[in-house]
Amino acid sequence: MSRFFSNKHKELVSYTPGEQPKVMDLVKLNTNESPFSPSEDVARTVYESAKRLNLYSDPTASDLHKKIADVLGVGENQVLATNGSDEILNFAFMAFCDDEHPVVFPDITYGFYPVFARLNGIKFEEIPLNDDFTINVDDYIGINKNIFIANPNAPTGIALPVSDIEKIVASNRNNVVVIDEAYVDFGAESAVKLIDKYDNLLVTQTFSKSRSFAGARLGFGVGCESLINDLNTIKYSTNPYNVNSLTMSAGIKILEEENITKRNCEEIIKNRQYAINGLKELGFICTDSSANFIFASHPEYSGKYIYEKLREMNILVRHFDKERIKDYNRITVGTKEQMDKLLSALKNII
Amino acid sequence: MSRFFSNKHKELVSYTPGEQPKVMDLVKLNTNESPFSPSEDVARTVYESAKRLNLYSDPTASDLHKKIADVLGVGENQVLATNGSDEILNFAFMAFCDDEHPVVFPDITYGFYPVFARLNGIKFEEIPLNDDFTINVDDYIGINKNIFIANPNAPTGIALPVSDIEKIVASNRNNVVVIDEAYVDFGAESAVKLIDKYDNLLVTQTFSKSRSFAGARLGFGVGCESLINDLNTIKYSTNPYNVNSLTMSAGIKILEEENITKRNCEEIIKNRQYAINGLKELGFICTDSSANFIFASHPEYSGKYIYEKLREMNILVRHFDKERIKDYNRITVGTKEQMDKLLSALKNII
Repeated sequence: MSRFFSNKHKELVSYTPGEQPKVMDLVKLNTNESPFSPSEDVARTVYESAKRLNLYSDPTASDLHKKIADVLGVGENQVLATNGSDEILNFAFMAFCDDEHPVVFPDITYGFYPVFARLNGIKFEEIPLNDDFTINVDDYIGINKNIFIANPNAPTGIALPVSDIEKIVASNRNNVVVIDEAYVDFGAESAVKLIDKYDNLLVTQTFSKSRSFAGARLGFGVGCESLINDLNTIKYSTNPYNVNSLTMSAGIKILEEENITKRNCEEIIKNRQYAINGLKELGFICTDSSANFIFASHPEYSGKYIYEKLREMNILVRHFDKERIKDYNRITVGTKEQMDKLLSALKNII
Repeated sequence: MSRFFSNKHKELVSYTPGEQPKVMDLVKLNTNESPFSPSEDVARTVYESAKRLNLYSDPTASDLHKKIADVLGVGENQVLATNGSDEILNFAFMAFCDDEHPVVFPDITYGFYPVFARLNGIKFEEIPLNDDFTINVDDYIGINKNIFIANPNAPTGIALPVSDIEKIVASNRNNVVVIDEAYVDFGAESAVKLIDKYDNLLVTQTFSKSRSFAGARLGFGVGCESLINDLNTIKYSTNPYNVNSLTMSAGIKILEEENITKRNCEEIIKNRQYAINGLKELGFICTDSSANFIFASHPEYSGKYIYEKLREMNILVRHFDKERIKDYNRITVGTKEQMDKLLSALKNII
């Protein structure tokens, strides 16, 4: 820390992203990436777009917004694209949370929420999940605070039905409820259908997982027009050209390939079930995942031990030190071949 | 504005980027873009990189940082790449400015500084430029506040010699001085050489102008390791994968083409002198620009009139309503052909 770093950040502990090793012979199951490359058409689109890199991208991102809106069945002015969904989440903290509007989220969830809260100097409360890692919906009814919920939740993969999300949103009409649907395409139900009914609902999604775009950084928020206007004020006060032109053109192209996205998601769902079956045969306990990862523990081996043994065998999964979940590992669902390598390595370890 | 927008942002007036029209037959001289496309090699690099878009970019950006450091002759740990230089500027406001550390900058400068200050709730003071739009260096000596100076300044194009920058930095050792060198490659002297001598100096640059990368969004900061560490803490608390993998690989590639960058800058400098000569023949007054734009007024015609007349003739320049500079237009220096179109249109107007 330099002698110039503001005192307001002295307590800030930044987010630790999953390891991105440069060795390429690893089976990389630690950051919930898609195992499927984008199509040749996407690569060609990016190539063509690179020839105009000397010009700024469209700060209104209107073509991309239109395309996202079409796919989701919402209005163009109900969408805001960002540099990954981390950016739209941070914009929501910046726009809607302050001393009078503190925030709550589960104690076990996306580790970035407390970081965003601290960064923006916002008081937050972590509501414990049930013992089985499910969310107790009653904990969020009428609590009069802003709420962030990942659905499906991470790293548990457990999803709430939209009827439960609606109860939470409807009972907190004077607060913003953000539903972070980074993993929704792998088997959960989206709350996007509720945005016309509730002006206090913001849904965020990402292209990183189901659309094979982790490297492109493309996320977005969907909500009523006035919420999106506020988020635009933040965007234009932060980085008006937040989405670069390569990603923008690639994003439009990949939304024309919804059949490929759908097929890839079905493959992941199939491989998830295959891997869960294999893990259970080895004695693992797995949560009921609706995401592209599995959250698994073993009654006889610590989470850290399994993580380290797999690491020695060139298989990378994600382990969190946090007390309540330290017996677990979060394992990205990849190809069937990757799942076979994982199961065979675990067979050796156990 | 929604009923949820935080009161702390009620005074926020966001930045207005230059118009990015979708009509392509315009002579676009309004956002200081390069008229030169990146090379075929850059486009090929981006194409290859797109095939691995399913994987996250390297959050440490170490290959890119090494390459930037090599080109500038600094250490890898003295560099931080960001999503355009707007992001590194905002990170500097976030990291080093607060109630105890207000900020000053010229009254006529990059219009984003007051926006960043308001966004982050930081008190700021605008120090008037001299009547000829030069900076009075004495105004910044020993003032005990954080300082942002664009060098060359925008929209005037006027540069300070590094000896003057050093006086300012040396006399404010307990405050951070940010030198924003977005336009430095078009004839000004960089302060990067001072970063080992002064731990309170942060220099920011961008790939948008001299490297034809406006659409790619790539900027960076250079400073002593402890300043860069603080900015990294902000980055990892905001958006760890802030630079997407397409831009990252393209950035590394274009830094291998410094001869092309140098040639393009020389061409712009030549065209700037050509255009200034033509403008003066038409009675315009131009500041002494070291940037890729010209700041020009005419004693007989208002800035707005010239802006609007040029717009009717499909030539787009940038006009600012601000009182002190409303008689001026900022005109991007493009190809000789573009400059000829500009001069011939102005001949018709006047």
